[in-house]
Amino acid sequence: MAEGRDYLRIATEEAFCPPEMLGVYAKLIDTKQVDDPGFLGMWGFYISSPTARTTFIRDHLVDVDEKRIAHMDAAGIDKAVLSLTAPGVQIMPKDTAVGFATFANDWLADAIARHPDRYVGLAAAAPQDPAAAAKEIERAVTRLGMRGVIISSHTLGEYLDDQKFWPIFEAAEALDVPIYIHPNTPNRHMYPTLAEKGLDGAIYGFSVETGMHILRIIVAGVFDRFPRLQIVIGHVGESLPFTLYRIDYMHRASTLSGRYEAMKPLKRAPSDYMKENLHYTNSGVAWAPPIRFIQDVIGVDRMMYAMDYPYQYLPAEVETLDAMDMPAADKKAFFQTNAEKLFKM
Amino acid sequence: MAEGRDYLRIATEEAFCPPEMLGVYAKLIDTKQVDDPGFLGMWGFYISSPTARTTFIRDHLVDVDEKRIAHMDAAGIDKAVLSLTAPGVQIMPKDTAVGFATFANDWLADAIARHPDRYVGLAAAAPQDPAAAAKEIERAVTRLGMRGVIISSHTLGEYLDDQKFWPIFEAAEALDVPIYIHPNTPNRHMYPTLAEKGLDGAIYGFSVETGMHILRIIVAGVFDRFPRLQIVIGHVGESLPFTLYRIDYMHRASTLSGRYEAMKPLKRAPSDYMKENLHYTNSGVAWAPPIRFIQDVIGVDRMMYAMDYPYQYLPAEVETLDAMDMPAADKKAFFQTNAEKLFKM
Repeated sequence: MAEGRDYLRIATEEAFCPPEMLGVYAKLIDTKQVDDPGFLGMWGFYISSPTARTTFIRDHLVDVDEKRIAHMDAAGIDKAVLSLTAPGVQIMPKDTAVGFATFANDWLADAIARHPDRYVGLAAAAPQDPAAAAKEIERAVTRLGMRGVIISSHTLGEYLDDQKFWPIFEAAEALDVPIYIHPNTPNRHMYPTLAEKGLDGAIYGFSVETGMHILRIIVAGVFDRFPRLQIVIGHVGESLPFTLYRIDYMHRASTLSGRYEAMKPLKRAPSDYMKENLHYTNSGVAWAPPIRFIQDVIGVDRMMYAMDYPYQYLPAEVETLDAMDMPAADKKAFFQTNAEKLFKM
Repeated sequence: MAEGRDYLRIATEEAFCPPEMLGVYAKLIDTKQVDDPGFLGMWGFYISSPTARTTFIRDHLVDVDEKRIAHMDAAGIDKAVLSLTAPGVQIMPKDTAVGFATFANDWLADAIARHPDRYVGLAAAAPQDPAAAAKEIERAVTRLGMRGVIISSHTLGEYLDDQKFWPIFEAAEALDVPIYIHPNTPNRHMYPTLAEKGLDGAIYGFSVETGMHILRIIVAGVFDRFPRLQIVIGHVGESLPFTLYRIDYMHRASTLSGRYEAMKPLKRAPSDYMKENLHYTNSGVAWAPPIRFIQDVIGVDRMMYAMDYPYQYLPAEVETLDAMDMPAADKKAFFQTNAEKLFKM
């Protein structure tokens, strides 16, 4: 811990991938083996574009040693929670995905073993095979020491509210580890209208895709079935806390009017789950107002720091967040202790 | 103005329709003349469902006399800005739409003439015929005294960032009246994934549809071309102010990387237009945190009150908002003076 600072900085949504994954992606793109225009649009650009931004991202996703540690040191990041970058294995054919999740988790475990005081990791899993995913989560947590699970929103257009995926929730709850629901590109139906104006990515579409996914999980009753399950969402909660009042009001109105077969009354209001089953990070948003908003309306014990490296590496953002007008205890919770508790660091 | 209160309450997103519009909708639904699953899903339910909520909405959309005035009195609403309920004429065949916009504006003008101290109105227009829409806006503003324009997001899947619609912006800017962009159901591509879990409407989908529309308008350079144009958005800005930092950051990253043909550098940052070309209401959100958030990050002169009658009629919500912890001048701006200035009341 640096002088004059009484908290560690733990960054909780930091992306990596084994170099082999870029090879798998390149092949999927070249052979157009996937019916996912979001993946083809985004990774088709990121994998080959020569711009400074995309080159930086490619070079640093695959590095978990000298370059990354140097960047963490330069920005004053003490520890990072690493997770396989989106969409991870969720775009691969089932058998490839199951095998690659194991490979990626072993690869990450090796990296953590080389830098045990700097990294912890989240386990990748292949929802394409829910039973195998649950098994891999158990292996990665109990044998490799992973502290949670990373899921990049939809899996080939399917969402975790579908009960066939619930073995994943069951495993996470039983192992007492959180699931981080990271954005994926919007599904094939929602992507075109957003992408035609450049809005499919981090500027807007990621948040739509992921916010919708979280609401699907809530209204499906996942937290009634798995009341101890904890889910983490980034990007200041994909904006959901901002309209918590409206979500509650309209959920009640819809269940009372009986309009939707898929929307039945829950044991509690949606906002109750948002306050007791969700955790939030500020990934990509180095701006105090929404961070303080979530601390106020959700709770200071559920708002955590994330940088979103290597997609958004700006040491100046760390200084901005250090300077937030916020009680010292809340700032320490934000930068350090909430992550320590949730990820058992 | 009631005793003990030093501000009028002006509600700015209050819906009506001539009874004839429900007849047009019923026919569109019966004959399945429209390729818009959102319209068919929502209005197919609202037009015939016998539940308390839908019956109340139908009965009170078409009333602009005794019942509405009594409700305004009961809730302490001094004045209302009335606008044709969504999707208005935007779902009708072109010729029907052009004719019905004129009819609806005349109908509204009559209602205002009966209650001139309680109502002002926004003009409906048919984007299906942009030249006719511009002409009708001019007629409605200069002859009927309308104070702005209502547009219910997409028109049969098309968005106002398409330059063919820009005569509408040109007319509004020339007449110095704002355009209220109200939600529509999500377009036919985005609707199914949301609707299958009941998320297409006010709980989430409306905001996705409308937030995307506003971002399309911003990134298309509409405010560079029409710098004096003012647009109003409800539902606490469809959550856009919450991620203003990320919108700016990612807009800059995308324009620098040159990824999108449709996303070119603008004269200013997206947040500059959000602060100088957009106004915001709290329709449907009787909750202080996001209202104060917008006052803080956008400005107290751009945050206005709305009830969303008859979709959300709860007099207790007015009391909640009266009780907000907020400087008296800001509360008066919120309830009264911002609307008076913008709508020239």
